[in-house]
Amino acid sequence: MGRRRALLAAGAVLAAGAGAAAVELAQDDQDADRATAGAPPADAAIPFHGARQAGVTAFQQPATHLLSFDLPRTSAAADRKTLRGVLAALTRTLATAASDAPRDPRLQGGGATRLTSLVGIGPALAARLRLDVPAVLAPLPSFPGDRLDPRRSDGDLLVQLCAADRWTLTVVAELVAAAAHAAGAAPRWTQSGFLPHTAPGTTPRNLFGSKDGTANPDRTAAERWVWGPAGAHRHGTVLVYRRIRMDVAGFAALPEGRRDLVMGRRARDGAPLSGTAEHDEPDIYAKNPDGSYVIPATAHVRLASPRFDGGARMLRRSYSYDDGPTDRGLLFCAFMRDPAQFTRVQNRLAARDALNPFLQHRASAVAYVLPGAAPDGTLGEQLWT
Amino acid sequence: MGRRRALLAAGAVLAAGAGAAAVELAQDDQDADRATAGAPPADAAIPFHGARQAGVTAFQQPATHLLSFDLPRTSAAADRKTLRGVLAALTRTLATAASDAPRDPRLQGGGATRLTSLVGIGPALAARLRLDVPAVLAPLPSFPGDRLDPRRSDGDLLVQLCAADRWTLTVVAELVAAAAHAAGAAPRWTQSGFLPHTAPGTTPRNLFGSKDGTANPDRTAAERWVWGPAGAHRHGTVLVYRRIRMDVAGFAALPEGRRDLVMGRRARDGAPLSGTAEHDEPDIYAKNPDGSYVIPATAHVRLASPRFDGGARMLRRSYSYDDGPTDRGLLFCAFMRDPAQFTRVQNRLAARDALNPFLQHRASAVAYVLPGAAPDGTLGEQLWT
Repeated sequence: MGRRRALLAAGAVLAAGAGAAAVELAQDDQDADRATAGAPPADAAIPFHGARQAGVTAFQQPATHLLSFDLPRTSAAADRKTLRGVLAALTRTLATAASDAPRDPRLQGGGATRLTSLVGIGPALAARLRLDVPAVLAPLPSFPGDRLDPRRSDGDLLVQLCAADRWTLTVVAELVAAAAHAAGAAPRWTQSGFLPHTAPGTTPRNLFGSKDGTANPDRTAAERWVWGPAGAHRHGTVLVYRRIRMDVAGFAALPEGRRDLVMGRRARDGAPLSGTAEHDEPDIYAKNPDGSYVIPATAHVRLASPRFDGGARMLRRSYSYDDGPTDRGLLFCAFMRDPAQFTRVQNRLAARDALNPFLQHRASAVAYVLPGAAPDGTLGEQLWT
Repeated sequence: MGRRRALLAAGAVLAAGAGAAAVELAQDDQDADRATAGAPPADAAIPFHGARQAGVTAFQQPATHLLSFDLPRTSAAADRKTLRGVLAALTRTLATAASDAPRDPRLQGGGATRLTSLVGIGPALAARLRLDVPAVLAPLPSFPGDRLDPRRSDGDLLVQLCAADRWTLTVVAELVAAAAHAAGAAPRWTQSGFLPHTAPGTTPRNLFGSKDGTANPDRTAAERWVWGPAGAHRHGTVLVYRRIRMDVAGFAALPEGRRDLVMGRRARDGAPLSGTAEHDEPDIYAKNPDGSYVIPATAHVRLASPRFDGGARMLRRSYSYDDGPTDRGLLFCAFMRDPAQFTRVQNRLAARDALNPFLQHRASAVAYVLPGAAPDGTLGEQLWT
């Protein structure tokens, strides 16, 4: 275990035993640059094994599917054993499905499907089984305006699949659900989402037409705000998931100039109202000649600004969802070291965001995204202390 | 009108008035070859205008979304006027969305989205408004085992969108629904589906792992069995839609050899049990040395064989769907001149198909797929006599 960890930490390239292909563990190189979203750079399988789970580090794929599971509640010892079994089953299933020999004849090789995944642990399970997770892992508080459906929220285990297409996700979700069921986990909820196809390095739009994810951290900032803390959790992170129903027609009915004031960015090019290009830092202090703020006091981008949080940034990899004509919106997915980063932002947004009339938070989940697995390892080995 | 029809029939290339790009009306060339399914052959927009609607003639795209609408029931004269308005609105909306200048900033140009569509008329509306549709257009009869949900079935108008990705479909579905609503139509149901990405000329698999669509008609057979009849309806066809829930886990639990006997084809390569390659014609008379049929009496492929119908073939362009862990299956979509072709096959299948324990027909619809629109025309001009 000590040797494996050391190798992982070094980001070394390991050969996975006799006959197995060499896999790159140094996924740090693929970490959160601005250009996390976009088309895959090459037609190759994305390695499952690595220091960090590929569902966070790889380029954002155009389709996602989330699965939440609950574990039975018997004795802590029995439940820990069940969790070990479920994690072993998920590791095997996900590694095989992502490989160039996915076994299921309905799946093409990894190069075509570009499957990535992540597995996370919910805070309630972590507390109940006294797992070694970051101390900051905790459920989110309630926010003003929340209308959360518990049947679509939370869960002991969270699996997020991402791939080039929905077909792959449906087939792999079936394999994941079967493996989890056989190991003793019960399905809680599932949710699928998608992105527009975007060129590598460009930011995908959401159903409001806004670019979503512009202010993502660069690699240096991600090491400070997304991954960690140092030690056993250096290669872990926390996922905050919110299912946000959007009143697309209502927002579209606003005049374009009004929509841009609500967002604080121009929909056309994504530039902040204080700037000229998408990646210009929004200047929340810039004023108009009449003394009013260029980015209004209730603009979404102002209230979400990292300037209020000492520069803290989340790695946002959100998807749109479409569950019928009256239920469309955003699957907000953001990775951060400490879920309190989200709580601070969401408290500001819930209180004043000019977008609020067009948004309803309908589901919520938090999960500790485990460090990656080595080719001879299992997800979650860090949990048992 | 006479001139327009003549040009359409000639498959001529027309320029769509000043400034518009020339569009190819000779979509007959793209008609139902065996290779209807697969990846788009080129990164170009698929023309909306043409003698036949591109939602039938173009290569099958990997994602689909169906929308069904009902018209109000007032007087026949008023409802005919409403229908004219809805068809005009749909023509405008679909032509713009499929073009290289789709207006909505959330849509990329047609070359990226590869949007195609078809608009059809339900038999009840056609009868009520005495529209000029093929005489064979009629609702399907009930079949043994049907468990149809009326809230997901039928409708006065059917729109099927197909595209390279789900994002495009969600955005265009929103535009279509808004246009239909503004013109007086009410939403009835929607349904989305998808395919595995397959190479051009190969047959996509369904969730059972079976290749689906192998026996599609070639171009000559399609002119006889899919399009027509001759006259005003030569460029129309009838869509039969069935939402078929599949017990994927139950079927997968059968041994591989048993699954192949149920289908009458080998899942591995799609070859009939009587042959060696996917496109070998199934020999329903071939016998084993012991006198039994090589393709069993209850095998799916035998009961669906065109040999029982004087060679009649449907153009099948089915999709898989995934509406949750317990509701997955096939959106059977087939085009034919006469819906009685489907009725004959389905009567045989409903009575004896060895697949029946794993299938539930949960929704159904029939629609007359209108001829295409010329650049200066509107879908449905043939309806008014």
